[in-house]
Amino acid sequence: MADLPDKAANFIEWYLAVVEAANLSDKRYPVKGMNVWTPYGMRARRNLDRVLTTEIEATGSEAVEFPALIPETEFAKEKEHIKGFDAQVFWVTKGGLSTLDVPLVLRPTSETAIYPIFALWVRSHRDLPLNVYQIVNTFRYETKTTRPFVRVREIHFFEEHTCQLDEAAATARVQSNLGAFRRMAAAFALPYLAVRRPEWDKFAGAHYTIAFDLPLGGARVLQLGSVHHYRDNFAVPYGIHYEGIDGTERTVHQTTFGLSERLLGAIVGAHGDQRGVIFPTAVAPYEVVVIPIPSASTTQDVPSAARAVVEELQRAGRRVHLDAGDERPGAKYYRWELAGVPLRIEVGARELERGQLTAADRLGRKQAIARASLTTEIGRLLAAFDQELAARAQAAFRGAIAPAATLAELKDSERVRAVGWCGDEACGHAIETAIDGALLGTPEEPLDLPVPKACVHCGRTEGVRLALAGQPM
Amino acid sequence: MADLPDKAANFIEWYLAVVEAANLSDKRYPVKGMNVWTPYGMRARRNLDRVLTTEIEATGSEAVEFPALIPETEFAKEKEHIKGFDAQVFWVTKGGLSTLDVPLVLRPTSETAIYPIFALWVRSHRDLPLNVYQIVNTFRYETKTTRPFVRVREIHFFEEHTCQLDEAAATARVQSNLGAFRRMAAAFALPYLAVRRPEWDKFAGAHYTIAFDLPLGGARVLQLGSVHHYRDNFAVPYGIHYEGIDGTERTVHQTTFGLSERLLGAIVGAHGDQRGVIFPTAVAPYEVVVIPIPSASTTQDVPSAARAVVEELQRAGRRVHLDAGDERPGAKYYRWELAGVPLRIEVGARELERGQLTAADRLGRKQAIARASLTTEIGRLLAAFDQELAARAQAAFRGAIAPAATLAELKDSERVRAVGWCGDEACGHAIETAIDGALLGTPEEPLDLPVPKACVHCGRTEGVRLALAGQPM
Repeated sequence: MADLPDKAANFIEWYLAVVEAANLSDKRYPVKGMNVWTPYGMRARRNLDRVLTTEIEATGSEAVEFPALIPETEFAKEKEHIKGFDAQVFWVTKGGLSTLDVPLVLRPTSETAIYPIFALWVRSHRDLPLNVYQIVNTFRYETKTTRPFVRVREIHFFEEHTCQLDEAAATARVQSNLGAFRRMAAAFALPYLAVRRPEWDKFAGAHYTIAFDLPLGGARVLQLGSVHHYRDNFAVPYGIHYEGIDGTERTVHQTTFGLSERLLGAIVGAHGDQRGVIFPTAVAPYEVVVIPIPSASTTQDVPSAARAVVEELQRAGRRVHLDAGDERPGAKYYRWELAGVPLRIEVGARELERGQLTAADRLGRKQAIARASLTTEIGRLLAAFDQELAARAQAAFRGAIAPAATLAELKDSERVRAVGWCGDEACGHAIETAIDGALLGTPEEPLDLPVPKACVHCGRTEGVRLALAGQPM
Repeated sequence: MADLPDKAANFIEWYLAVVEAANLSDKRYPVKGMNVWTPYGMRARRNLDRVLTTEIEATGSEAVEFPALIPETEFAKEKEHIKGFDAQVFWVTKGGLSTLDVPLVLRPTSETAIYPIFALWVRSHRDLPLNVYQIVNTFRYETKTTRPFVRVREIHFFEEHTCQLDEAAATARVQSNLGAFRRMAAAFALPYLAVRRPEWDKFAGAHYTIAFDLPLGGARVLQLGSVHHYRDNFAVPYGIHYEGIDGTERTVHQTTFGLSERLLGAIVGAHGDQRGVIFPTAVAPYEVVVIPIPSASTTQDVPSAARAVVEELQRAGRRVHLDAGDERPGAKYYRWELAGVPLRIEVGARELERGQLTAADRLGRKQAIARASLTTEIGRLLAAFDQELAARAQAAFRGAIAPAATLAELKDSERVRAVGWCGDEACGHAIETAIDGALLGTPEEPLDLPVPKACVHCGRTEGVRLALAGQPM
């Protein structure tokens, strides 16, 4: 098997190679940017979705599902929104052999599908807050180069849509979403920047947008998701009104929270190394792979012992896979490291004689464990693995961001840059030109960086804030 | 609240009213036949999917997901198949502002999306069997009257696609699917007819089709799903070949197994009564609803006791809902009966004093249970509820099918009819005309009915088999 491209030197090539080699996605489907979820990739996706579902439901959100097709008439109701999406949607124009009276948009996101129905569901203050989410596929007629999980035309998408009593309640929901994302990201061992996007880069139709950006080497960042405060920008055109406690008619304020399969790309990109993918336990298709070591021993039945290990772990609720194939153990180790399984258990005759097994984690740490306390030991090793994975990611994160005091330092930057910004759009664009990327925004969560005294472009000192600049993937 | 229409006299009206009253689906979405999955409906769907997923994975099938859009060029490769679907697909013809070079079909089913990739995945006999399934939405440009869950234009769909070594192995997979469906249907307490469809009614492109039909009163039947043997009908045009053990190139034989949200419609239709939906425990959005009975008692804290009951059941893994609203208990009973929750626990001061709770199941059976053995008692009551629900459905099933010795008996039949059929298509169509419906097919699983001696139409005796006739919904 060929070596992977160098991750540090050729990140994109490495990324494409590792996704393919680990068999997470098959991009040979005959429509550009629409990829096949393989059995192995689907296992990861299912685990990822479980984390999202658990965390969002813990904040009082309920699952729903709205149709994939949106009539043009509904799609066009909010003017900024339609402007933002017009050029990147697929249109259904024919049903059977006839042309449709009203063309249908294949949802690029679901505001315009959901809000006409919200207008029916919300009648009284007693119906609020209304917090619902759906996990569905969305579609974008992407014209840029597509890449598995990161930029695709059919997107596995998580979107929460809420209606709140007023602007303050919507702001509180945004904060609740930030907390939920913090817990999700912890399960994925992903550090990130939570930034308020500048005005010119907010979501089409939003009052403001908070995005989560992951540094991925150099000045490169990947947007992991976003939370939007809509105020009543959609509620007015879609007529989402309610009777307040005082009997007057009021209009809801809304928020949304969007995530996608891109999280899987982020996990691959952030944690992977030259040997392949590294999955955090919560997402790993298998948490543990068990590999019997062939032996001529007459006292130890290795295959049976390996099966017993698997069964015991399954009973304990672990996702475990027995690799009993006839390859040599070294080839299996190689393959499961490429696939990113957190923990490998080697079942060998000599260890069994001593009442032991060998455990090797995907970070290269190997030790003997007592067979008798298998379940406890596996739990301990996986927790230690996750902790170390998070610590390494956190260290990389800290090293990925550096202050810059001049525009010159932004050119060919090997880091994401923290700069002073006066808030003017013209200065923002100058920063973007200098880094050949984007002004990501101003931090919404504390960052261990000094707040600069002056704008990196105009030098003004009043109203200066810390801003991040980088190159979005 | 208004009464439901009479189920026996006006089944369709009753069905539409009960789906709406139980808030399982919202059909006010502005595209005909595309409905909104409400939070309550989604809970049922999630449980239904869990049963399907568990049972199909137990037979060695793995989850995958293929794109929703299929290029016209792939869609047209199998001639019977395209003929069968041509008039009922949605076409995507525009991406952004430009016309697509190759129009894309929004999948009505996924053979033509999956098989070009199967041709890449299957190389050697070691890759077989290949058993994968996906749960996705499919789309049909339905021109008939649409009805929630039963006939819709965006369908929540389960489809297994497999490749097997040869025809016999494919036949064995069909049998495995029949077994899996038997276990799924048992979880839903749904009896059904497994019949081999006549030639003229098989799936477009199939060698043969076995369908599952549920009698729903009168001569009415609802198809719950189907299993198809494709032989190499698709494998040849899509080029799914492999190197056999003997080194020669061979072509796979294929099967598919399709189910949908229609199962939810079937559960509503088969079990529901004049008071509303009745969910089997496996599918119920909530297995148990807990209702505190307001009281002036100074010795018993009813609200706390109700919360404790809920928490104990949640810890035991039960799906339980606390209805602590300020409606009177009778209104709550009415609402949760309408919603189909299997078991209601009433927490009252007097019962608490005696160390008891009141449990009422959705079939109207009420009893006191000991608070101290809550979890065990609930498990016992739910099992008894499911058993009784299945027994009632089984009794209705037996009463729904009756033999007919003459075509005259098929006219305005109040039952699904079992007749003798010689196998000729002309006789089949005569039977269909007589019952104003369809020849459903010949039983694939034993039915407790005598095999007639002569064809009900032509009177011939040679080759006569038992066949079922009814009116598909």
